[in-house]
Amino acid sequence: MSSAATAVGLQRVLVANRGEIAVRVVRACRSLGIGTVVVTSTVDRDGMAARLADRSVCIGPPPAGESYLAIPSILSAALGTGCDAVHPGYGFLSENPEFAAAVVENGLVFVGPRPDAVAQAGDKARARELARSAGIPVLDGSPIMDTADDAARAAGELGYPVLVKAAAGGGGRGMSVVEDETGLRSRWPAAAEEARSAFGDGRLYVERYVRRARHIEVQVLGDRHGHVIHVGERDCTLQRRHQKVVEESPAPNIPETVRAHIRDSGVAFARALELDSAGTVEFIYDADRDEFAFLEFNARIQVEHPVSELVSGIDLVAEQLRSAAGEPLRYHQSDVDVRGHAVEVRITTEDPARGFVPNPGTVTLWEPPTGDGIRVDSHCETGYRVTPYYDSLLAKIVAHGPDRTAAIDRMIAALDGLKVEGVPTTREFCRAALDHPDFRAGVVTTDWIATRGLPDFLEKDR
Amino acid sequence: MSSAATAVGLQRVLVANRGEIAVRVVRACRSLGIGTVVVTSTVDRDGMAARLADRSVCIGPPPAGESYLAIPSILSAALGTGCDAVHPGYGFLSENPEFAAAVVENGLVFVGPRPDAVAQAGDKARARELARSAGIPVLDGSPIMDTADDAARAAGELGYPVLVKAAAGGGGRGMSVVEDETGLRSRWPAAAEEARSAFGDGRLYVERYVRRARHIEVQVLGDRHGHVIHVGERDCTLQRRHQKVVEESPAPNIPETVRAHIRDSGVAFARALELDSAGTVEFIYDADRDEFAFLEFNARIQVEHPVSELVSGIDLVAEQLRSAAGEPLRYHQSDVDVRGHAVEVRITTEDPARGFVPNPGTVTLWEPPTGDGIRVDSHCETGYRVTPYYDSLLAKIVAHGPDRTAAIDRMIAALDGLKVEGVPTTREFCRAALDHPDFRAGVVTTDWIATRGLPDFLEKDR
Repeated sequence: MSSAATAVGLQRVLVANRGEIAVRVVRACRSLGIGTVVVTSTVDRDGMAARLADRSVCIGPPPAGESYLAIPSILSAALGTGCDAVHPGYGFLSENPEFAAAVVENGLVFVGPRPDAVAQAGDKARARELARSAGIPVLDGSPIMDTADDAARAAGELGYPVLVKAAAGGGGRGMSVVEDETGLRSRWPAAAEEARSAFGDGRLYVERYVRRARHIEVQVLGDRHGHVIHVGERDCTLQRRHQKVVEESPAPNIPETVRAHIRDSGVAFARALELDSAGTVEFIYDADRDEFAFLEFNARIQVEHPVSELVSGIDLVAEQLRSAAGEPLRYHQSDVDVRGHAVEVRITTEDPARGFVPNPGTVTLWEPPTGDGIRVDSHCETGYRVTPYYDSLLAKIVAHGPDRTAAIDRMIAALDGLKVEGVPTTREFCRAALDHPDFRAGVVTTDWIATRGLPDFLEKDR
Repeated sequence: MSSAATAVGLQRVLVANRGEIAVRVVRACRSLGIGTVVVTSTVDRDGMAARLADRSVCIGPPPAGESYLAIPSILSAALGTGCDAVHPGYGFLSENPEFAAAVVENGLVFVGPRPDAVAQAGDKARARELARSAGIPVLDGSPIMDTADDAARAAGELGYPVLVKAAAGGGGRGMSVVEDETGLRSRWPAAAEEARSAFGDGRLYVERYVRRARHIEVQVLGDRHGHVIHVGERDCTLQRRHQKVVEESPAPNIPETVRAHIRDSGVAFARALELDSAGTVEFIYDADRDEFAFLEFNARIQVEHPVSELVSGIDLVAEQLRSAAGEPLRYHQSDVDVRGHAVEVRITTEDPARGFVPNPGTVTLWEPPTGDGIRVDSHCETGYRVTPYYDSLLAKIVAHGPDRTAAIDRMIAALDGLKVEGVPTTREFCRAALDHPDFRAGVVTTDWIATRGLPDFLEKDR
């Protein structure tokens, strides 16, 4: 470590994740002078995160159940290497309340909200109740449903179509729209299995599905002294099968009064939860009716957090670490000033030409794009092996510009500048989406990719 | 071009430069919807700038005198491709008043100050006079000296040591400290030759040399409607043979009253010059005496402009293009808000282990560093050939953080993350400089590298 003393009261953080977010957390710790230990599976042993950290501990083979979801192994690694805190990243155990509780019970700091807040957020019905009690409009949904029979009953009350969602949710995993009871019953087992393998928790619930919706989420930050602020909102409307494709901040094309109301609702929810870390309050926005409703709360850092960082200048992962160390927030709401516009895309090895099947393989050439306004969060490098065990994210590319058009244009130039060989990627797909007149006009809805039809949509690139 | 119409009143810009700055200018044009033509020498024909531009025109072989300094060829290329403006970048013809005048006389827009302002700034004695008349303290120096005899006379009046400087100056080329008249006479012919080959202008002058100085410069912006603002200051004190090694913004470790006074002096000079574009007012700051003095004015974009962009959020190259198109400045002084701290280093193929001799060769692997707060401005890529004809800059790496320590730590991580094979680089040298306690404490002076001794300084890396 180059710094003599840590900037916050943590000495050594265990990073319980992999890939780009493990790299991101190691870097944030390093910039605060905090030591790092990364846990890895056998296939990630020589990865970038392991090399950047002060130390790495291999805790087991893939799949995740035997390593990144193995709570006892992770706790042993933390305690055995003298860590005083654990950062869960996103996905894996990041929103698992048992994990958060186990971390705290072992005398370690959980870099995230208090375990009871993680639990409350994870119980989607309770989270909706909390939102209602805070005066926030809420999208109708069921509590957790144990069986397809119960779910079918709840869906009947909500009215089809409904969205089947993972209780431990996030990232679209285990999520699907079903049009009727037959669809619900046939989808239920696979959705439960998908949720189990992604989050170690197969529980599901159903929610009213809004067809022409936009996804807008508020980044919130709290500390252990009762302060809560928002760091603007993100628009993650462009989705493919409930997976975010493009994320941006601020949200384009919404009335300023609505923007302010959504932000205030995010803060109101975080206050009601007594949030003491970073989190994201997700809303659905019906642009036709100009109405929004609370969807759920994510008690962790999001994949798309960089867009908020670029427009606000606030390092959200560093703030997570600071608040976990018990520091008061260093920002008042009036300090948060959104500057320009930022857009993020996810470069994965899913092959658009073959139905987005993820492609394992070796990256034989990797040259990330450079230039002003371009940020790349990545664990990829020439020779990196994409295994079938994890999501196939190679890099998040983030473009910042003085306005939305400039940010989009910079992103397109960055996508053109990216050199990657050996695996197919979503690059051209992202490029076509960004450059589409509908996206440029800010009028897409969450079903846009599905309803627009992929061949048509990618036509110009073929 | 993805944008339907240009954001400013220019249709097509000829970029009269090469390397990273040509790439930077092409990107800025693109983000404003302006078309681009890049002129290249034969060795740069397939370079990144040529590929990114809408079109490229090869105007001759190296050395620069037959291509990047060949005014008639550049003008022909501009007129022949229907360009309405010329961006000169930095170095080469960027501060050549004949070139600026020729551009304007041919009915083209010069993306830089009015030719007479370029001429005034280029006449260092006249620039100093202007500074004096604006009430700014000025470092003593001579007018342009035609012969070593004249220079020796002037140096005698100033008192040794003196600095020999190129009239067309910039970037340390042609610059040297001489301790006495013998040194001056022996150095004179080589300095003139160096200036001639770098700028197409071999004229020299002499200036009083301050040994324990810091180099602080103010970024200024003006428009064609009489508005002038500053965009903070940069500290470029860490130099090796008058070449900047590390640049940062804001300047560390100066009293706020001095910072304000230096910034105001920068604006006062720009107003006196009626500056209508981007420029940099350079000052020398004597930390011991807490005094500063005007050195010179650079009527162009600087190599180190990205540090100002990162802390201010202002795209300086886009502002150059806007003001050249006759637009009024979009910022009032009160809009300029310095956020955090930014540091830049220059990765060149000069070999620190062999006296910084520049190394031609092929870059066999190039993976620029990634991560939050990291910007890379570069024309390098795997397979790039470094020729002996131009400076050996591969990339500028810029790190932005909430404070100086964080920015330095991020830069060190970025330098560690850079992968470059096939050529030696200054990476370890830059890393050692940044991580040195003197640099971290912000107490270095311009003679620090020279007086500290390189072996000692690089000791920890050997």
